[in-house]
Amino acid sequence: VSKLRYSGSISLDGFAAGPDQSPEHPLGVGGRALHTWMKDLDAAQSGSSRLLEEDDTGVGALIMGRNMFGGGPGPWGEDPWQGWWGPNPPFHLPVFVLTHHPRPPLSCEGGTTFTFVTDGLEAARAQAEEAAGGQHVDICGGATVAKQYLAAGLLDEILLHLVPIFLGAGVRLFDDQAFATISLAQVFVVEAPGVTHLKYRVLR
Amino acid sequence: VSKLRYSGSISLDGFAAGPDQSPEHPLGVGGRALHTWMKDLDAAQSGSSRLLEEDDTGVGALIMGRNMFGGGPGPWGEDPWQGWWGPNPPFHLPVFVLTHHPRPPLSCEGGTTFTFVTDGLEAARAQAEEAAGGQHVDICGGATVAKQYLAAGLLDEILLHLVPIFLGAGVRLFDDQAFATISLAQVFVVEAPGVTHLKYRVLR
Repeated sequence: VSKLRYSGSISLDGFAAGPDQSPEHPLGVGGRALHTWMKDLDAAQSGSSRLLEEDDTGVGALIMGRNMFGGGPGPWGEDPWQGWWGPNPPFHLPVFVLTHHPRPPLSCEGGTTFTFVTDGLEAARAQAEEAAGGQHVDICGGATVAKQYLAAGLLDEILLHLVPIFLGAGVRLFDDQAFATISLAQVFVVEAPGVTHLKYRVLR
Repeated sequence: VSKLRYSGSISLDGFAAGPDQSPEHPLGVGGRALHTWMKDLDAAQSGSSRLLEEDDTGVGALIMGRNMFGGGPGPWGEDPWQGWWGPNPPFHLPVFVLTHHPRPPLSCEGGTTFTFVTDGLEAARAQAEEAAGGQHVDICGGATVAKQYLAAGLLDEILLHLVPIFLGAGVRLFDDQAFATISLAQVFVVEAPGVTHLKYRVLR
Protein backbone atom coordinates (compact mmCIF):
# COMPACT_ATOMS: atom_id res chain seq x y z
CA VAL A 1 0.00 0.00 0.00
CA SER A 2 1.26 3.46 -0.85
CA LYS A 3 2.09 5.58 2.20
CA LEU A 4 2.46 9.32 2.57
CA ARG A 5 5.67 9.93 4.49
CA TYR A 6 7.61 12.85 5.88
CA SER A 7 11.25 12.78 6.83
CA GLY A 8 13.19 15.71 8.12
CA SER A 9 15.87 16.86 10.51
CA ILE A 10 14.80 18.43 13.76
CA SER A 11 16.75 20.10 16.54
CA LEU A 12 16.44 18.93 20.13
CA ASP A 13 14.27 21.95 20.80
CA GLY A 14 11.92 20.98 17.99
CA PHE A 15 12.85 23.24 15.10
CA ALA A 16 12.90 22.05 11.49
CA ALA A 17 14.56 25.31 10.44
CA GLY A 18 16.20 28.22 12.20
CA PRO A 19 14.89 31.79 12.29
CA ASP A 20 15.01 34.31 9.41
CA GLN A 21 14.90 31.99 6.40
CA SER A 22 16.15 33.60 3.19
CA PRO A 23 17.81 32.59 -0.08
CA GLU A 24 21.11 33.02 1.74
CA HIS A 25 19.89 30.93 4.70
CA PRO A 26 17.33 28.50 3.24
CA LEU A 27 17.24 26.61 6.55
CA GLY A 28 17.29 29.79 8.62
CA VAL A 29 20.12 31.15 10.72
CA GLY A 30 21.99 28.22 12.26
CA GLY A 31 19.81 25.74 10.38
CA ARG A 32 22.66 24.25 8.37
CA ALA A 33 23.72 22.41 11.52
CA LEU A 34 20.57 20.31 11.08
CA HIS A 35 22.24 18.61 8.11
CA THR A 36 25.79 18.20 9.41
CA TRP A 37 25.18 14.52 10.16
CA MET A 38 24.70 13.83 6.44
CA LYS A 39 28.35 14.65 5.74
CA ASP A 40 29.45 11.48 7.48
CA LEU A 41 27.28 9.22 5.38
CA ASP A 42 29.81 8.56 2.64
CA ALA A 43 32.67 7.94 5.02
CA ALA A 44 31.33 4.72 6.49
CA GLN A 45 28.47 2.30 6.22
CA SER A 46 26.93 3.91 9.23
CA GLY A 47 23.49 3.16 10.54
CA SER A 48 22.28 6.35 8.92
CA SER A 49 23.49 5.37 5.52
CA ARG A 50 21.88 1.93 5.53
CA LEU A 51 18.70 3.40 6.96
CA LEU A 52 18.41 6.07 4.33
CA GLU A 53 19.05 3.66 1.50
CA GLU A 54 16.26 1.44 2.71
CA ASP A 55 14.08 4.43 3.17
CA ASP A 56 14.58 5.60 -0.41
CA THR A 57 13.46 2.29 -1.82
CA GLY A 58 10.06 2.48 -3.32
CA VAL A 59 9.43 6.19 -3.53
CA GLY A 60 7.30 6.93 -6.58
CA ALA A 61 6.46 10.61 -6.20
CA LEU A 62 7.11 13.67 -4.07
CA ILE A 63 5.02 16.49 -2.64
CA MET A 64 6.52 19.85 -1.77
CA GLY A 65 5.39 23.35 -0.89
CA ARG A 66 5.76 26.34 -3.13
CA ASN A 67 8.66 27.66 -1.05
CA MET A 68 10.59 24.43 -1.53
CA PHE A 69 10.04 24.61 -5.28
CA GLY A 70 11.18 28.18 -5.41
CA GLY A 71 8.81 30.59 -3.82
CA GLY A 72 9.17 33.97 -2.27
CA PRO A 73 9.09 37.15 -4.31
CA GLY A 74 10.81 35.59 -7.32
CA PRO A 75 9.67 35.61 -10.93
CA TRP A 76 6.91 33.11 -10.15
CA GLY A 77 4.47 32.92 -13.02
CA GLU A 78 6.92 34.27 -15.55
CA ASP A 79 7.89 31.33 -17.69
CA PRO A 80 10.43 29.85 -17.75
CA TRP A 81 11.03 30.25 -13.96
CA GLN A 82 12.13 26.77 -12.92
CA GLY A 83 12.33 27.21 -9.16
CA TRP A 84 15.55 26.88 -7.18
CA TRP A 85 16.55 23.66 -8.84
CA GLY A 86 17.93 24.53 -12.27
CA PRO A 87 17.48 22.55 -15.47
CA ASN A 88 18.24 19.12 -13.95
CA PRO A 89 16.63 18.92 -10.50
CA PRO A 90 17.89 16.20 -8.13
CA PHE A 91 14.53 14.48 -7.70
CA HIS A 92 14.16 12.34 -10.85
CA LEU A 93 10.53 11.74 -9.94
CA PRO A 94 7.12 13.30 -10.42
CA VAL A 95 6.91 16.22 -7.97
CA PHE A 96 3.61 17.78 -6.91
CA VAL A 97 3.90 21.38 -5.78
CA LEU A 98 1.22 22.81 -3.48
CA THR A 99 0.46 26.36 -4.58
CA HIS A 100 -2.32 28.88 -5.03
CA HIS A 101 -0.99 29.87 -8.47
CA PRO A 102 -2.10 27.66 -11.37
CA ARG A 103 0.62 26.86 -13.86
CA PRO A 104 1.15 24.20 -16.53
CA PRO A 105 3.35 21.25 -15.58
CA LEU A 106 7.10 21.66 -16.01
CA SER A 107 9.22 18.79 -17.34
CA CYS A 108 12.94 18.93 -16.60
CA GLU A 109 16.00 16.93 -17.57
CA GLY A 110 16.64 13.80 -15.58
CA GLY A 111 13.03 12.75 -15.25
CA THR A 112 11.79 15.36 -12.78
CA THR A 113 8.36 16.78 -13.55
CA PHE A 114 6.72 19.50 -11.48
CA THR A 115 2.93 19.46 -11.38
CA PHE A 116 1.32 22.47 -9.69
CA VAL A 117 -1.68 21.58 -7.54
CA THR A 118 -4.04 24.36 -6.51
CA ASP A 119 -6.92 22.40 -5.01
CA GLY A 120 -5.46 21.36 -1.69
CA LEU A 121 -3.70 18.70 0.31
CA GLU A 122 -5.99 15.81 -0.44
CA ALA A 123 -5.96 16.45 -4.20
CA ALA A 124 -2.16 16.63 -4.19
CA ARG A 125 -1.94 13.38 -2.27
CA ALA A 126 -4.34 11.67 -4.68
CA GLN A 127 -2.46 12.85 -7.74
CA ALA A 128 0.90 11.91 -6.26
CA GLU A 129 -0.36 8.45 -5.28
CA GLU A 130 -1.59 7.84 -8.78
CA ALA A 131 1.73 8.96 -10.24
CA ALA A 132 3.59 6.77 -7.73
CA GLY A 133 1.84 3.65 -9.01
CA GLY A 134 1.72 1.87 -5.67
CA GLN A 135 5.05 3.17 -4.38
CA HIS A 136 5.34 5.59 -1.49
CA VAL A 137 4.84 9.34 -1.69
CA ASP A 138 7.32 11.45 0.28
CA ILE A 139 6.86 14.99 1.46
CA CYS A 140 10.12 16.48 0.34
CA GLY A 141 11.09 19.36 2.55
CA GLY A 142 8.77 21.94 3.91
CA ALA A 143 7.95 21.37 7.56
CA THR A 144 4.94 23.60 7.00
CA VAL A 145 3.56 21.20 4.41
CA ALA A 146 4.22 18.20 6.64
CA LYS A 147 2.39 19.85 9.53
CA GLN A 148 -0.63 20.52 7.35
CA TYR A 149 -0.79 16.88 6.22
CA LEU A 150 -0.37 15.65 9.80
CA ALA A 151 -3.11 17.93 11.11
CA ALA A 152 -5.40 16.84 8.28
CA GLY A 153 -4.94 13.17 9.17
CA LEU A 154 -3.36 12.46 5.79
CA LEU A 155 0.19 11.53 6.89
CA ASP A 156 1.16 7.89 7.46
CA GLU A 157 4.77 7.94 8.61
CA ILE A 158 7.24 10.36 10.16
CA LEU A 159 10.99 9.79 10.07
CA LEU A 160 12.79 12.27 12.30
CA HIS A 161 16.51 12.92 12.23
CA LEU A 162 16.94 14.26 15.75
CA VAL A 163 20.07 16.39 15.91
CA PRO A 164 21.63 17.29 19.30
CA ILE A 165 21.57 21.04 18.79
CA PHE A 166 19.39 23.88 20.03
CA LEU A 167 18.28 26.46 17.46
CA GLY A 168 16.36 28.58 19.98
CA ALA A 169 13.91 29.88 17.38
CA GLY A 170 12.63 29.15 13.90
CA VAL A 171 10.03 26.83 12.39
CA ARG A 172 8.69 24.34 14.92
CA LEU A 173 7.72 21.01 13.40
CA PHE A 174 5.15 20.11 16.07
CA ASP A 175 3.28 23.15 17.34
CA ASP A 176 -0.35 22.43 16.49
CA GLN A 177 -2.84 21.69 19.28
CA ALA A 178 -4.73 19.52 16.79
CA PHE A 179 -1.90 16.99 16.99
CA ALA A 180 -3.04 16.03 20.51
CA THR A 181 -5.72 13.81 18.97
CA ILE A 182 -3.17 11.84 16.92
CA SER A 183 -1.81 8.50 18.12
CA LEU A 184 1.59 7.22 17.06
CA ALA A 185 3.49 3.95 17.17
CA GLN A 186 7.26 3.92 17.50
CA VAL A 187 8.53 1.86 14.54
CA PHE A 188 12.30 1.94 14.96
CA VAL A 189 15.17 3.97 16.37
CA VAL A 190 18.68 4.08 14.95
CA GLU A 191 21.52 5.80 16.78
CA ALA A 192 24.25 7.20 14.55
CA PRO A 193 27.06 9.73 14.90
CA GLY A 194 25.57 13.12 15.66
CA VAL A 195 21.98 12.10 15.01
CA THR A 196 19.22 9.72 16.09
CA HIS A 197 16.77 8.46 13.49
CA LEU A 198 13.27 7.86 14.84
CA LYS A 199 10.46 6.41 12.76
CA TYR A 200 6.83 6.72 13.82
CA ARG A 201 3.63 5.45 12.24
CA VAL A 202 0.42 7.45 12.53
CA LEU A 203 -2.35 5.23 13.90
CA ARG A 204 -5.87 5.62 12.56
CA VAL B 1 33.31 14.22 39.43
CA SER B 2 29.81 15.06 40.60
CA LYS B 3 27.45 15.97 37.76
CA LEU B 4 24.18 17.85 37.82
CA ARG B 5 21.71 15.85 35.77
CA TYR B 6 18.13 16.13 34.61
CA SER B 7 16.00 13.26 33.42
CA GLY B 8 12.43 13.52 32.36
CA SER B 9 9.79 12.30 29.97
CA ILE B 10 8.96 14.46 26.98
CA SER B 11 6.30 14.17 24.32
CA LEU B 12 7.22 14.16 20.64
CA ASP B 13 6.00 17.74 20.44
CA GLY B 14 8.34 18.74 23.25
CA PHE B 15 6.13 18.97 26.33
CA ALA B 16 7.28 17.81 29.78
CA ALA B 17 3.73 18.23 31.09
CA GLY B 18 0.32 18.80 29.57
CA PRO B 19 -1.80 21.93 29.98
CA ASP B 20 -3.75 22.96 33.11
CA GLN B 21 -1.64 21.35 35.83
CA SER B 22 -3.48 20.89 39.12
CA PRO B 23 -3.44 18.57 42.15
CA GLU B 24 -5.84 16.36 40.18
CA HIS B 25 -3.61 16.50 37.09
CA PRO B 26 -0.06 16.99 38.44
CA LEU B 27 1.34 16.37 34.95
CA GLY B 28 -1.38 18.40 33.25
CA VAL B 29 -4.27 17.14 31.15
CA GLY B 30 -3.07 14.12 29.17
CA GLY B 31 0.30 14.22 30.87
CA ARG B 32 -0.02 10.82 32.54
CA ALA B 33 0.65 9.28 29.13
CA LEU B 34 4.21 10.56 29.52
CA HIS B 35 4.78 7.88 32.16
CA THR B 36 2.97 4.93 30.62
CA TRP B 37 6.25 3.39 29.48
CA MET B 38 7.33 2.95 33.11
CA LYS B 39 4.59 0.38 33.70
CA ASP B 40 6.43 -2.12 31.53
CA LEU B 41 9.65 -1.89 33.50
CA ASP B 42 8.88 -4.66 35.98
CA ALA B 43 7.58 -7.04 33.35
CA ALA B 44 10.85 -7.62 31.61
CA GLN B 45 14.50 -6.74 31.80
CA SER B 46 13.94 -4.23 29.06
CA GLY B 47 16.47 -1.73 27.89
CA SER B 48 14.68 0.88 29.93
CA SER B 49 14.96 -1.04 33.13
CA ARG B 50 18.68 -1.71 32.79
CA LEU B 51 19.26 1.86 31.74
CA LEU B 52 17.42 3.32 34.67
CA GLU B 53 19.16 1.08 37.17
CA GLU B 54 22.51 2.20 35.87
CA ASP B 55 21.33 5.76 35.90
CA ASP B 56 20.29 5.58 39.54
CA THR B 57 23.71 4.40 40.62
CA GLY B 58 25.62 7.07 42.37
CA VAL B 59 22.99 9.69 43.05
CA GLY B 60 23.80 11.47 46.28
CA ALA B 61 21.30 14.31 46.39
CA LEU B 62 18.30 15.79 44.58
CA ILE B 63 17.17 19.29 43.63
CA MET B 64 13.51 20.10 43.05
CA GLY B 65 11.30 23.13 42.64
CA ARG B 66 8.79 24.30 45.17
CA ASN B 67 5.90 22.95 43.10
CA MET B 68 7.42 19.49 43.07
CA PHE B 69 7.80 19.59 46.85
CA GLY B 70 4.24 20.68 47.34
CA GLY B 71 3.55 24.17 46.16
CA GLY B 72 0.48 25.96 45.01
CA PRO B 73 -1.93 27.58 47.41
CA GLY B 74 -1.45 24.92 50.06
CA PRO B 75 -0.63 25.41 53.74
CA TRP B 76 2.95 26.35 52.88
CA GLY B 77 4.69 27.89 55.85
CA GLU B 78 2.30 26.36 58.33
CA ASP B 79 4.26 23.65 60.07
CA PRO B 80 4.05 20.71 59.83
CA TRP B 81 3.15 20.92 56.07
CA GLN B 82 5.26 18.18 54.53
CA GLY B 83 4.59 18.73 50.85
CA TRP B 84 2.85 16.17 48.65
CA TRP B 85 4.97 13.31 49.85
CA GLY B 86 3.64 12.26 53.22
CA PRO B 87 5.68 11.14 56.23
CA ASN B 88 7.94 8.74 54.28
CA PRO B 89 8.87 10.33 50.94
CA PRO B 90 10.20 8.04 48.21
CA PHE B 91 13.52 9.83 47.79
CA HIS B 92 15.64 8.51 50.70
CA LEU B 93 18.21 11.21 49.97
CA PRO B 94 18.97 14.82 50.83
CA VAL B 95 16.58 16.96 48.75
CA PHE B 96 17.19 20.66 48.12
CA VAL B 97 14.02 22.62 47.38
CA LEU B 98 14.31 25.90 45.45
CA THR B 99 11.94 28.42 46.98
CA HIS B 100 11.56 32.07 47.91
CA HIS B 101 10.16 31.15 51.33
CA PRO B 102 12.76 30.42 54.01
CA ARG B 103 11.98 27.48 56.23
CA PRO B 104 13.97 25.19 58.53
CA PRO B 105 15.03 21.81 57.10
CA LEU B 106 12.52 18.97 57.35
CA SER B 107 13.67 15.44 58.19
CA CYS B 108 11.35 12.59 57.24
CA GLU B 109 11.23 8.87 57.77
CA GLY B 110 13.28 6.79 55.38
CA GLY B 111 16.23 9.13 55.17
CA THR B 112 14.70 11.92 53.12
CA THR B 113 15.60 15.43 54.26
CA PHE B 114 14.23 18.57 52.63
CA THR B 115 16.47 21.63 52.76
CA PHE B 116 14.89 24.87 51.54
CA VAL B 117 17.23 27.05 49.50
CA THR B 118 16.31 30.68 48.95
CA ASP B 119 19.49 32.05 47.41
CA GLY B 120 19.26 30.67 43.93
CA LEU B 121 20.30 27.96 41.51
CA GLU B 122 24.03 28.07 42.08
CA ALA B 123 23.69 27.95 45.86
CA ALA B 124 21.33 24.98 45.63
CA ARG B 125 23.73 23.17 43.34
CA ALA B 126 26.65 23.84 45.68
CA GLN B 127 24.75 22.64 48.76
CA ALA B 128 23.48 19.55 46.94
CA GLU B 129 26.96 18.70 45.67
CA GLU B 130 28.37 18.93 49.14
CA ALA B 131 25.61 16.70 50.51
CA ALA B 132 26.16 14.25 47.64
CA GLY B 133 29.77 13.73 48.69
CA GLY B 134 31.11 13.18 45.18
CA GLN B 135 28.05 11.39 43.85
CA HIS B 136 25.75 12.90 41.24
CA VAL B 137 23.02 15.44 41.88
CA ASP B 138 19.76 14.88 40.01
CA ILE B 139 17.08 17.44 39.27
CA CYS B 140 14.03 15.52 40.34
CA GLY B 141 11.01 16.66 38.40
CA GLY B 142 10.22 20.18 37.51
CA ALA B 143 10.95 20.96 33.87
CA THR B 144 10.94 24.60 34.89
CA VAL B 145 13.82 24.03 37.28
CA ALA B 146 15.74 22.04 34.67
CA LYS B 147 15.31 24.82 32.11
CA GLN B 148 16.65 27.38 34.54
CA TYR B 149 19.74 25.28 35.25
CA LEU B 150 20.31 24.66 31.54
CA ALA B 151 19.98 28.34 30.67
CA ALA B 152 22.37 29.23 33.50
CA GLY B 153 25.02 26.86 32.17
CA LEU B 154 24.86 24.76 35.34
CA LEU B 155 23.48 21.50 33.93
CA ASP B 156 25.83 18.69 32.88
CA GLU B 157 23.61 15.92 31.51
CA ILE B 158 20.12 15.51 30.10
CA LEU B 159 18.38 12.13 29.89
CA LEU B 160 15.20 12.37 27.86
CA HIS B 161 12.52 9.71 27.78
CA LEU B 162 10.96 10.56 24.40
CA VAL B 163 7.40 9.27 24.31
CA PRO B 164 5.55 8.92 20.97
CA ILE B 165 2.59 11.08 21.91
CA PHE B 166 1.49 14.62 21.14
CA LEU B 167 0.22 16.70 24.05
CA GLY B 168 -0.55 19.77 21.92
CA ALA B 169 0.00 22.20 24.78
CA GLY B 170 1.55 22.42 28.22
CA VAL B 171 5.03 23.00 29.60
CA ARG B 172 7.69 22.94 26.89
CA LEU B 173 11.05 21.62 28.07
CA PHE B 174 13.12 23.51 25.47
CA ASP B 175 11.68 26.92 24.68
CA ASP B 176 14.42 29.33 25.64
CA GLN B 177 16.32 31.24 22.95
CA ALA B 178 19.32 31.24 25.30
CA PHE B 179 19.70 27.50 24.64
CA ALA B 180 20.93 28.28 21.11
CA THR B 181 24.39 29.00 22.54
CA ILE B 182 24.62 25.57 24.20
CA SER B 183 26.44 22.68 22.54
CA LEU B 184 25.56 19.07 23.23
CA ALA B 185 27.08 15.67 22.63
CA GLN B 186 24.88 12.63 22.08
CA VAL B 187 25.99 10.09 24.68
CA PHE B 188 23.69 7.13 24.03
CA VAL B 189 20.28 6.14 22.71
CA VAL B 190 18.22 3.19 23.92
CA GLU B 191 15.07 2.10 22.14
CA ALA B 192 12.48 0.44 24.36
CA PRO B 193 8.75 -0.33 24.13
CA GLY B 194 6.85 2.91 23.87
CA VAL B 195 9.81 5.15 24.60
CA THR B 196 13.27 6.13 23.43
CA HIS B 197 15.89 7.09 26.00
CA LEU B 198 18.33 9.74 24.80
CA LYS B 199 21.26 10.93 26.86
CA TYR B 200 23.09 14.17 26.08
CA ARG B 201 26.08 15.84 27.69
CA VAL B 202 26.32 19.62 27.82
CA LEU B 203 29.66 20.75 26.39
CA ARG B 204 31.51 23.66 27.99
